[in-house]
Amino acid sequence: MKSYRKELWFETKHRREFVNITKEIEQCVKASGVQEGLVLVNPMHITASVFINDDEKGLHQDFETFLEKIAPEKPYNQYHHNGYEDNADAHLKRTIMGRETVVAITRGRLDFGPWEQIFYGEFDGKRKKRVLVKIIGE
Amino acid sequence: MKSYRKELWFETKHRREFVNITKEIEQCVKASGVQEGLVLVNPMHITASVFINDDEKGLHQDFETFLEKIAPEKPYNQYHHNGYEDNADAHLKRTIMGRETVVAITRGRLDFGPWEQIFYGEFDGKRKKRVLVKIIGE
Amino acid sequence: MKSYRKELWFETKHRREFVNITKEIEQCVKASGVQEGLVLVNPMHITASVFINDDEKGLHQDFETFLEKIAPEKPYNQYHHNGYEDNADAHLKRTIMGRETVVAITRGRLDFGPWEQIFYGEFDGKRKKRVLVKIIGE
Repeated sequence: MKSYRKELWFETKHRREFVNITKEIEQCVKASGVQEGLVLVNPMHITASVFINDDEKGLHQDFETFLEKIAPEKPYNQYHHNGYEDNADAHLKRTIMGRETVVAITRGRLDFGPWEQIFYGEFDGKRKKRVLVKIIGE
Repeated sequence: MKSYRKELWFETKHRREFVNITKEIEQCVKASGVQEGLVLVNPMHITASVFINDDEKGLHQDFETFLEKIAPEKPYNQYHHNGYEDNADAHLKRTIMGRETVVAITRGRLDFGPWEQIFYGEFDGKRKKRVLVKIIGE
Repeated sequence: MKSYRKELWFETKHRREFVNITKEIEQCVKASGVQEGLVLVNPMHITASVFINDDEKGLHQDFETFLEKIAPEKPYNQYHHNGYEDNADAHLKRTIMGRETVVAITRGRLDFGPWEQIFYGEFDGKRKKRVLVKIIGE
């Protein structure tokens, strides 16, 4: 069994941002030498998400509206968590979007349908944060 | 290490539908010959979900009501994504239900509690779509 | 390839409760002898969740408020599932929080960022329920 580990670093300009990381994950798969296996991709932080969906700007605006409707950022004092912090909404938003994704590797490549793209979903950005890529297989 | 890959095809009659695929996944596990490992099951499309819950019709109606409440299909023009398409709600619904599931394989079988069942959750159906089954283990 | 399996048992005092199980999972990783691999942690029940977030009481209150807002427990008769049962909301809440988590194992330890903690999320408690820990790797 082979294994591979890499950290990807991000510092988004805005509090909330979606970054397409599909190419970076493809490069990790190639570097790992794994032909058949699984790749786990997850943020190492609890106010961010890794998820798979469409790379379409309109949809990303719809996600923003949807998330703000069910877990709004403001007013900050609506959340118990926001004593010294202001990011309770980011913890909730990341939960809705999911923490991690697991993707199949087949013949040395991400085994994807035609529109699947991997995103880093930031909900409390403007600071350095990491994504972990872990691959196991053969 | 052994690996196994299969695509399951679906074409649901309705826009939204839940299909119990537990038996198909059990058959994949058997065919793989893997005794100890993991099975990843995910749609290869971004408007569908694979999730684990109860095979109970009342609950499935409750899921429909719940999803329509927080991410309604109509009016279509409430979503930026719906310029040429009408399925923004399906992208949101699949996000809430989750993309994929990972299940343990123990002694050659799905390692499940008494009520766990695997479902294909379709949110933009009436056309051919695929689910990927990937197994690794020994 | 090595594999390891363990069941953890819980009986919470309240209907809804979050239990930090990070130490128990660390012990499983150690006991497995796996240095590089993946650990899957999932409830074997469909009204509970395993998720990763912050061990902060204010945030846990915020999760309770958030979940009750979008999938309220009462009135029970708002749900089709609640003919003989009263736990439809628990099925929905577990869906929002997610069923399972997959975590990387690196050099024999959970490969975590500084604040990541694993929780058992109970939404229909006061009875004995199980969590499955499955590890594969080398």
